[in-house]
Amino acid sequence: MRFALQTRLNDYDSKGHVNNAVYLAYFEIGRVRAWLAAGGDVDAGFILAEATISYRSPAMMGDPLDLEMTTAEIRNKAWVWQYRILDSRDDRLVAEGETVQVMFDYSSRTTVPIPEAIRDGLTRT
Amino acid sequence: MRFALQTRLNDYDSKGHVNNAVYLAYFEIGRVRAWLAAGGDVDAGFILAEATISYRSPAMMGDPLDLEMTTAEIRNKAWVWQYRILDSRDDRLVAEGETVQVMFDYSSRTTVPIPEAIRDGLTRT
Amino acid sequence: MRFALQTRLNDYDSKGHVNNAVYLAYFEIGRVRAWLAAGGDVDAGFILAEATISYRSPAMMGDPLDLEMTTAEIRNKAWVWQYRILDSRDDRLVAEGETVQVMFDYSSRTTVPIPEAIRDGLTRT
Amino acid sequence: MRFALQTRLNDYDSKGHVNNAVYLAYFEIGRVRAWLAAGGDVDAGFILAEATISYRSPAMMGDPLDLEMTTAEIRNKAWVWQYRILDSRDDRLVAEGETVQVMFDYSSRTTVPIPEAIRDGLTRT
Repeated sequence: MRFALQTRLNDYDSKGHVNNAVYLAYFEIGRVRAWLAAGGDVDAGFILAEATISYRSPAMMGDPLDLEMTTAEIRNKAWVWQYRILDSRDDRLVAEGETVQVMFDYSSRTTVPIPEAIRDGLTRT
Repeated sequence: MRFALQTRLNDYDSKGHVNNAVYLAYFEIGRVRAWLAAGGDVDAGFILAEATISYRSPAMMGDPLDLEMTTAEIRNKAWVWQYRILDSRDDRLVAEGETVQVMFDYSSRTTVPIPEAIRDGLTRT
Repeated sequence: MRFALQTRLNDYDSKGHVNNAVYLAYFEIGRVRAWLAAGGDVDAGFILAEATISYRSPAMMGDPLDLEMTTAEIRNKAWVWQYRILDSRDDRLVAEGETVQVMFDYSSRTTVPIPEAIRDGLTRT
Repeated sequence: MRFALQTRLNDYDSKGHVNNAVYLAYFEIGRVRAWLAAGGDVDAGFILAEATISYRSPAMMGDPLDLEMTTAEIRNKAWVWQYRILDSRDDRLVAEGETVQVMFDYSSRTTVPIPEAIRDGLTRT
């Protein structure tokens, strides 16, 4: 999955770079899309366990940015999504990272195995 | 009511000024405090109807900021809070504004008169 | 000018509504586009003097939102932009507001008259 | 170093939890303080290379949060800061993470060794 990000002026810090915390908000835009595309409910059935980001080159004001996202690993109860932020003009790598999600049943408040349908959906991200 | 704001690096834009939208987040820190101090429930019983801000002088990175807040008017179902953002070193006015709140019953989803106890609490802000 | 907003999960508050401060960030996405379309420099030559918002109906998670924006008034040194946030499915009005901008020369640090070319550009927003 | 965080309503998502991206903004509040305490310049002389977060338990609206921060490792050009977000009432661990910073000379635009004075300062975080 790859799509264009709509940046906002307050994404940028005083050096004119996208602020480090904002990349996680960008990742989350992709996460919502990927989750719905995988057949997940709007009222998300997973919890976020971990997030990692490597900052590769600064994104300056005006740089058009894309988010590319893929499912890297599917375990019994958890899966890993990988993200790359790219300058859409030349595919320069701006940042990359990954997050670990754990399937969660909010009614029983316990982690649960990934349902088969969601598992299939995740392979298509 | 007056208290110090804890600013964050991503409050500042690429010119090193506090971003215009962030002042509303500052106002909201005060609103939560004022509401609880007035005896309101955490799960807020009002809706925000209007917000106005005038930007008076830029707040730069490192400027220590205070929020000063007062109840300006109490009507039957609505009230007005006024806010001033000040440089805490010399009381330089950075921004000022106001918001209009309307008492709201989330169960019946209608506006309701301000309860007497809240009305008293609001006069003390 | 009208275009679709790309919402983010952290635009929503604990009631599932777009947070009141976030609308100013939405307005600003439009402001950048309108400014560039009017022939303005990326390194903006104006300061924001005032902002007003009226909250008309809540935007819930998943509601697709559009921003509609128009130049309402052009004075000697200042101009007014108006904004409407709409549910793109049925044009339900979510929020509306306006901002006042003042032309500013960052080198001399004074307000200046709006250049003729910008003035023409603004009429086309 | 340990201090209280001032949370904001728009830190919370639609489940009433602090949004995952906001923790990086919390870490950054500590980073600015630690940097200044170590003798660093406001106009930061480092770049952020990596960030990692593990989400341990949700922080709900109203939970008072502290940030605890320590320097975990100092290399020739880079150092590692570790962070823990704690419920200040009982030290329940909410999130923990680390960031890698690289000393950077913005005039020559190259990475440089950590100056001795800063190195000493970092050991005291």
